[in-house]
Amino acid sequence: MTDVSYIYGKNAVIEALEAGNREFNRILISNTARSDEKIEKIKTLAKQSGIVFQFVTKDKLNQLIPEARHQGVIAHIAPIRYEELEDFIEHNSENLTSVVILDGIEDSHNLGAIIRSAVCAGVKGIILPSRRGVLVNSTVEKTSAGAVNSISIIKVNSLVNAIQKLKENNYWVIAADHHSTENYYDINYTDMNFALIMGAEHAGISKSLLKLSDFKVKIPMLTNFNSLNVSNAAAIILFESVKQKLTTNSKK
Amino acid sequence: MTDVSYIYGKNAVIEALEAGNREFNRILISNTARSDEKIEKIKTLAKQSGIVFQFVTKDKLNQLIPEARHQGVIAHIAPIRYEELEDFIEHNSENLTSVVILDGIEDSHNLGAIIRSAVCAGVKGIILPSRRGVLVNSTVEKTSAGAVNSISIIKVNSLVNAIQKLKENNYWVIAADHHSTENYYDINYTDMNFALIMGAEHAGISKSLLKLSDFKVKIPMLTNFNSLNVSNAAAIILFESVKQKLTTNSKK
Repeated sequence: MTDVSYIYGKNAVIEALEAGNREFNRILISNTARSDEKIEKIKTLAKQSGIVFQFVTKDKLNQLIPEARHQGVIAHIAPIRYEELEDFIEHNSENLTSVVILDGIEDSHNLGAIIRSAVCAGVKGIILPSRRGVLVNSTVEKTSAGAVNSISIIKVNSLVNAIQKLKENNYWVIAADHHSTENYYDINYTDMNFALIMGAEHAGISKSLLKLSDFKVKIPMLTNFNSLNVSNAAAIILFESVKQKLTTNSKK
Repeated sequence: MTDVSYIYGKNAVIEALEAGNREFNRILISNTARSDEKIEKIKTLAKQSGIVFQFVTKDKLNQLIPEARHQGVIAHIAPIRYEELEDFIEHNSENLTSVVILDGIEDSHNLGAIIRSAVCAGVKGIILPSRRGVLVNSTVEKTSAGAVNSISIIKVNSLVNAIQKLKENNYWVIAADHHSTENYYDINYTDMNFALIMGAEHAGISKSLLKLSDFKVKIPMLTNFNSLNVSNAAAIILFESVKQKLTTNSKK
């Protein structure tokens, strides 16, 4: 439940260096790692930004990250900076904006994958409750392939208050709810600010949040199997919005 | 890389019991687990099928699955039965059929999530190479929420041969390749057998498989961020096919 203080894996480190919005303390590189294109890129990017890198033994790296595959690279970084919702709304008031609200996601892999898909889908912010579910830890950072550095992460005490604030600021609220009768592809995502709420893995979306939603949508399936993984479900809905935006633009 | 010999977690055990196609040796239930609806359901289903269940200490369960969250339930089962491709093709020759071919997926969470989405999308089979990537282990089984029991899992020595066999049997081969110019939503999935190839997390799809593909499709994005998680990408494409099938049917 602690915030991340290091990131690891070649791709995740490169993404964070390129995004350029994280404070790096130092980068540790295994002294037995075969140098390849990616390691060279990390060294070049680090030099350009005046970030210290040093070569250490693989054992030293393994002590920091015993199980995960660090691929010979670990960066010590300052914890992620969470953004205030008010600031986020103000910074994004000029353009149509979308955010994803996560109602207590418990699994770090799911959170990381959702953040990654959200960035690819042009979503600008992720809203997390501060007291339930997982926050951005190093597994999330790794699973997101560094996408946490390309999106605003907003931590709030009350999702109800956050949704009310979004609604006051002209966001439409869409809840992914498999009890719904409306299909996710029957909504027009192209000309509105929207906030997509995804529920926790087992509990789904809280009733208090469902009540505040403008739309409730389900993903229809071809079998009766229980339900989709939450990151897969989020990707399906977000990429319907991408498709609509791209195909609407091309028609103009 | 070993095949699964137990499944754990209440939902995964219930799914496997309901699917009814796995051989259970016995089900272990924690003697300190609070009995709830799901535990009761497990006991009822086990009784109906003549499967032994026994109550053991939590320590005993923790020894079997030290880290993962077994939720007080572990079932010993016979390893998953892989199906032969020839049998699969024959068994599914009466109806339009889709399969997913995974070219060396390395991460168990990804494999589990893909299998889960595939089942929800009405896909009938998953084809895995026997010597590369991950096979069905207990993490895959858990992440799939038991979906491995609702789909044919086919392990082949050569994906090239498998694809050739599918093509001979009237399957169209679609490769998810982000270098492609064609968008995944520009294909009509409704009136063909199709095999969707997804590449490994880092390496993508092998050239030899790309060459055999009838279509190469990309998922267009709204940002330049590197790429989607493979299970999210698979879900996006598969659910485009579901949407087409459902909306085409409703128009008839």
